[in-house]
Amino acid sequence: MRRIGALIFPGFELLDVFGPMEMFGLLEDDFQLELVAETPGPIQSNQKLKAIAEHSISDDTHYDILFVPGGAGTRREVGNHRLLDWISISAEKVEFTLSVCTGSALLAKAGVLDTRRATTNKAAYSWVRTQGPNVDWVPQARWVEDGPFLTSSGVSAGMDMTLGAIALLHGEDRAEEVAKWCEYSWHKDKSHDPFAQIHGLV
Amino acid sequence: MRRIGALIFPGFELLDVFGPMEMFGLLEDDFQLELVAETPGPIQSNQKLKAIAEHSISDDTHYDILFVPGGAGTRREVGNHRLLDWISISAEKVEFTLSVCTGSALLAKAGVLDTRRATTNKAAYSWVRTQGPNVDWVPQARWVEDGPFLTSSGVSAGMDMTLGAIALLHGEDRAEEVAKWCEYSWHKDKSHDPFAQIHGLV
Repeated sequence: MRRIGALIFPGFELLDVFGPMEMFGLLEDDFQLELVAETPGPIQSNQKLKAIAEHSISDDTHYDILFVPGGAGTRREVGNHRLLDWISISAEKVEFTLSVCTGSALLAKAGVLDTRRATTNKAAYSWVRTQGPNVDWVPQARWVEDGPFLTSSGVSAGMDMTLGAIALLHGEDRAEEVAKWCEYSWHKDKSHDPFAQIHGLV
Repeated sequence: MRRIGALIFPGFELLDVFGPMEMFGLLEDDFQLELVAETPGPIQSNQKLKAIAEHSISDDTHYDILFVPGGAGTRREVGNHRLLDWISISAEKVEFTLSVCTGSALLAKAGVLDTRRATTNKAAYSWVRTQGPNVDWVPQARWVEDGPFLTSSGVSAGMDMTLGAIALLHGEDRAEEVAKWCEYSWHKDKSHDPFAQIHGLV
């Protein structure tokens, strides 16, 4: 059983979080999900709807997987040193760190992606790059794996990465079962990224 | 501006709700989102994580769109007459009623789909059918439109239906913009449903 700490903050992107949590959550014998925030309680998403963070970054949390979403709130949180410090310390302790969309800007700003290959939302690519000048940013990828770091492209790409993470940990058959249960057509090829072209990055 | 009332209940499926709410929510000048439940406050999803329903079905809500997700909780809620009555009354007042996955079992049991064409999750197809013997169930469809009712297949199909609803209301270009922003490859063909075959329904 692996514990997943999914960070949320005001202005987090709904699907960045709940697409992956849907899929991890279906394997309830393998993954235990927790929402964690700087201040626990109701946290308003970018779409205004609220989720509840039952844990605080001040709690003595022990996660196996750290999960960091994107959303408009990342533009503020890249200046939040308390949160970045927590990300940096947590990323050292966990087995895997995952991000979706502009969540990789938070990882980059926390310094944990330095010298690593990583990707992000293609619409926000130029901004995210400035948050991590020492990161080897990949302009065309659905998601990127580099050691314990899995970073995905924008919003819905998080679901493809999550199935990739399930495949890494439990085999491709389990990932296919989850995709089938969700009636989701998994984009299994990490390098297939039509949105890079749409945004003129390749 | 249309107000969307998204019903949640204990055991609602995360992605059924938050995939569509991500997409509607991006058009913040066109849609206002509200989570509504029998009892307002924190509501635990099928994946254990909690969202906040800020409105109760007892409130004097006036929605333009009623949205009903699925999830394991529907097996209990098909016996909840207070909730079914609210669904029935609300569906008469709104412009459109949308369901995802086994959400159509609640619509069917509330009687609002009688004589209508509708679809549902393909893994739960035989159970859902028993909830609405007078519904014209469609075994192979990503989603079905019949008058003011849009019903989708399982979990991730809700996102394709939502883009279809956005196209209906604001034109296909707007739907394509939302899909692009979410880096989502929209399955635009309502009749394309490989999961019907996987589950032996065709």
